[in-house]
Amino acid sequence: MSARFMHTMVRITDPAKSRAFYEALGFTFERDMDIVRDGEVEATNSFFSLGASKSVLELTFNHDGRTYELGTGYGHIAVGADDLEASLAALGESAAGRWVWAGGAGTRGEGGGEPYRVREGGSLLCFVRDPEGCR
Amino acid sequence: MSARFMHTMVRITDPAKSRAFYEALGFTFERDMDIVRDGEVEATNSFFSLGASKSVLELTFNHDGRTYELGTGYGHIAVGADDLEASLAALGESAAGRWVWAGGAGTRGEGGGEPYRVREGGSLLCFVRDPEGCR
Repeated sequence: MSARFMHTMVRITDPAKSRAFYEALGFTFERDMDIVRDGEVEATNSFFSLGASKSVLELTFNHDGRTYELGTGYGHIAVGADDLEASLAALGESAAGRWVWAGGAGTRGEGGGEPYRVREGGSLLCFVRDPEGCR
Repeated sequence: MSARFMHTMVRITDPAKSRAFYEALGFTFERDMDIVRDGEVEATNSFFSLGASKSVLELTFNHDGRTYELGTGYGHIAVGADDLEASLAALGESAAGRWVWAGGAGTRGEGGGEPYRVREGGSLLCFVRDPEGCR
């Protein structure tokens, strides 16, 4: 039995804002897929690639205006970047301006703060919040 | 600026059960990384591979016994399988027995039900719940 990782899915309330955010992080919009029920578009699923990882992110937008409880069980999506400072700058310059990384404003456990390392010699990392408030 | 998908992270409350569940789905346990704060192990992050996708899943276990609100914003992780029936059978036979796919017991919108296709000619798919109750 072989298996492969296809995608991770999160629900969103504003497709344009989410698209701007994920594009600023380096994702590429790939395609929309409408979910039609009884002749009406109930939801639109948008797939994004990241480098060689095709369709690795699915954003689901339900057209009925519903909102979501973020909960605490889901953590994050980790994206590797060659130049963390450039990625953070891109977020700041994008249409997703309000999701500028929370430099200095938060603590690492709260989804903000300066880039840091988990252990000496480890990778430099930084949390940023998506338009829905997840990180 | 190049970027790459690294992993998606979910928090768990029972590492053994979650490991059995994800292994039944085809994931391979890779390594544990303890997060130590003030000399105490605060959390253990377990990384899993899935085929060629190394470290693509991170399960975070906090040692203080906390539980989580699952919320409604996060949706699922999609795993491709060559043989869906075999994968479902493996779930049923694994130590993760209680996460047997909900064949016939639910509806597709509620994380159970028979395998189905989103559209004619589309892939056969099926939702299963993880030990935390997510799907």
